[in-house]
Amino acid sequence: MTRDDALALDAADPLRELRAQFELPPGVIYLDGNSLGPLPKATAARVQQVVRQEWGEGLIRSWNSAGWMTLPQRLGDKIARLVGVGAGELVVADSTSVNLFKVLSAALSIVQEAATPRRVILSERSNFPTDLYIAEALARERGFELVLADDYELPARLDHRVAVLMLTHVNYRTGRMHDMAALTHAAHEAGALALWDLAHSAGAVPVDLRAAKADFAIGCGYKYLNGGPGAPAFVWVHPDHADRFWQPLAGWMGHASPFEFAPGYRPAAGISRYLCSTPAVLSLAALECGVDTVLAVEPLGGMAALRAKSLALTRLFAQRVQATCPGLALASPADDAQRGSQVCFAHPECGYPVIQALIARGVIGDFRSPDILRFGFTPLYLRFVDAWDAAEHLRAVMHTGEWRRPEFNRRQAVT
Amino acid sequence: MTRDDALALDAADPLRELRAQFELPPGVIYLDGNSLGPLPKATAARVQQVVRQEWGEGLIRSWNSAGWMTLPQRLGDKIARLVGVGAGELVVADSTSVNLFKVLSAALSIVQEAATPRRVILSERSNFPTDLYIAEALARERGFELVLADDYELPARLDHRVAVLMLTHVNYRTGRMHDMAALTHAAHEAGALALWDLAHSAGAVPVDLRAAKADFAIGCGYKYLNGGPGAPAFVWVHPDHADRFWQPLAGWMGHASPFEFAPGYRPAAGISRYLCSTPAVLSLAALECGVDTVLAVEPLGGMAALRAKSLALTRLFAQRVQATCPGLALASPADDAQRGSQVCFAHPECGYPVIQALIARGVIGDFRSPDILRFGFTPLYLRFVDAWDAAEHLRAVMHTGEWRRPEFNRRQAVT
Repeated sequence: MTRDDALALDAADPLRELRAQFELPPGVIYLDGNSLGPLPKATAARVQQVVRQEWGEGLIRSWNSAGWMTLPQRLGDKIARLVGVGAGELVVADSTSVNLFKVLSAALSIVQEAATPRRVILSERSNFPTDLYIAEALARERGFELVLADDYELPARLDHRVAVLMLTHVNYRTGRMHDMAALTHAAHEAGALALWDLAHSAGAVPVDLRAAKADFAIGCGYKYLNGGPGAPAFVWVHPDHADRFWQPLAGWMGHASPFEFAPGYRPAAGISRYLCSTPAVLSLAALECGVDTVLAVEPLGGMAALRAKSLALTRLFAQRVQATCPGLALASPADDAQRGSQVCFAHPECGYPVIQALIARGVIGDFRSPDILRFGFTPLYLRFVDAWDAAEHLRAVMHTGEWRRPEFNRRQAVT
Repeated sequence: MTRDDALALDAADPLRELRAQFELPPGVIYLDGNSLGPLPKATAARVQQVVRQEWGEGLIRSWNSAGWMTLPQRLGDKIARLVGVGAGELVVADSTSVNLFKVLSAALSIVQEAATPRRVILSERSNFPTDLYIAEALARERGFELVLADDYELPARLDHRVAVLMLTHVNYRTGRMHDMAALTHAAHEAGALALWDLAHSAGAVPVDLRAAKADFAIGCGYKYLNGGPGAPAFVWVHPDHADRFWQPLAGWMGHASPFEFAPGYRPAAGISRYLCSTPAVLSLAALECGVDTVLAVEPLGGMAALRAKSLALTRLFAQRVQATCPGLALASPADDAQRGSQVCFAHPECGYPVIQALIARGVIGDFRSPDILRFGFTPLYLRFVDAWDAAEHLRAVMHTGEWRRPEFNRRQAVT
């Protein structure tokens, strides 16, 4: 394969028009959309409209006239289309961690009602730390035990003590993707509930929560959904569970009738009880523009088409790097079925400075402690020639020893 | 007093220049800044800069280069100046309700460590409902009892069973302001902790949490701090308590070293452990512009000058309405020392349509169920002539029966 072959793939790509939806700085190959999605072209104007017209001119009246109050549900209905659930089943609110706290609390409450209570939350040792921290604190508070296992051990650890299997669908470091349907089935067979974090899945890979019979899900707005730094997150609860419990963050927006200003809490029906606070209107408006960039794939073959291009991109990049950089060990699954939308390599010492040297060249990936070079591939805006060129830059950085320069070896606060 | 006298007061007002900080729609007298502050002139440009440059061009690099990661602390230091606490003691994050959950949880943990545990959370029956809902849910979960009393009963109800006195400093409906120092002292005398919600105080009235020896405080960003619809909130914990407990929303931003990606939670020192999630950068940037509009009072006499003008405005409005609308009962304290920065009237039947008729005239107040007409007075942008004219409009609406028109009697979703 040659660079011209990559250009030919781009020319034939049915999704090539989607790149025009984004403001991408010239000279940058952006392989970090799995950490912070880039700016959609529609966002700046939409945020200005919300700031200047809806807030500035409409003032308090916009809660009604601009539909601010129902943004969490309307935007939730859009995200629902990306994760295989129905309208009215999913809302946008708060952060991924806060939403995890809500659904994990509800899951523990369901379990505590059972005749033979189970006391274990089972998760993966390499799950994203904030999920583990939330679970650790909640387990401590509620008298549960958080048990961590490696991914291959999970099925065997699903025993009669497990209350909840809590997993991130696509691993943040390696990009390894679990078989959601199979693990959910195994959890249910063992009598446990299944809770999925879709931070690296929603908008990145096809997700079908209903088909998988999942119980709870949460996800992030600022990665593949392109919602902007610190965008709000989403939360879904299977309709069979949604009305069964209060969630502990029982704020007024989850009340059945918030503007009654009644002193007693009465939860709203369904998923709306998982709301807590006044909607963060500016952030929700920006997130809606981001979600729309993903929904734009619907008339072009949908998530299946996006997935096909994603796999082709990650395959191309992984193969090129493996062919030219023998010192880098592929840390993502080579098997398509097990790989999310990212490719990672491990190196025992040079991971951090190599990433810094690449960033200086305009190829933006990131480093994840202790040894991972991480490259996210978002087919909405990445071309085959970008994957090709990025691999060439990586080869050059490795072969010239460019990464040894002192300026690439000074650690910054955020890696 | 005449309208010309009001104009003369404006001409002599040392704070008159501060109004130029805001985008105020022509023809509007905005008396709802206690619900949603108006748009500062600086905000639109600042938000555009964050969206287009920091996010659009800087992409992931802006976590370091634009200082995104420390926004919660830097903005917290600014708000600290408005509530009488030191730099490094207060952070901006999440929502008021979520922050209440964190500090109330910590307060209950402190109490549970005591030799003779106390089981009551004492609050005010007319406290803002979301605070009561959060406390109700948490009390249920943790085996406490939420006891509600009228404000005059509070001192007598502070007995040996009370763990936490949880109050909102200025009542959202009536504008009645508690004596924070006296009630905190009474709580401590009774062996209880004191937790204050500053939603209607921060930026509105002088607050000195340290002088009052308060234990915990939370507050809202979108009211008197002019941060925009659904802006993030703030949280303060007395340094004596800040390191004593985990808070239950133990997300990665409260970790001592979040980018270590360690599987176990180790809380940051001090108030930073009250952070949970990735900072909501767009919303924080907008809030900073709002906070700056209040800090602009510092060289002009500070919060004392703001308070003096606020009291003069509310006095003028209350007196004019009482003189011209005998059917409206003053529901806010006539005594300056007990009144926040708003004036309310009660009417058994016409509250809702009168507010709608006023809004149609460009005088924006709001209605609070069941019978309250609520008018917020923010001296940063309101003039004495606004208070005069608003009272005249109210008189006209009442005397002409304009409020009886059908269009003013159709209820909207958000009141």
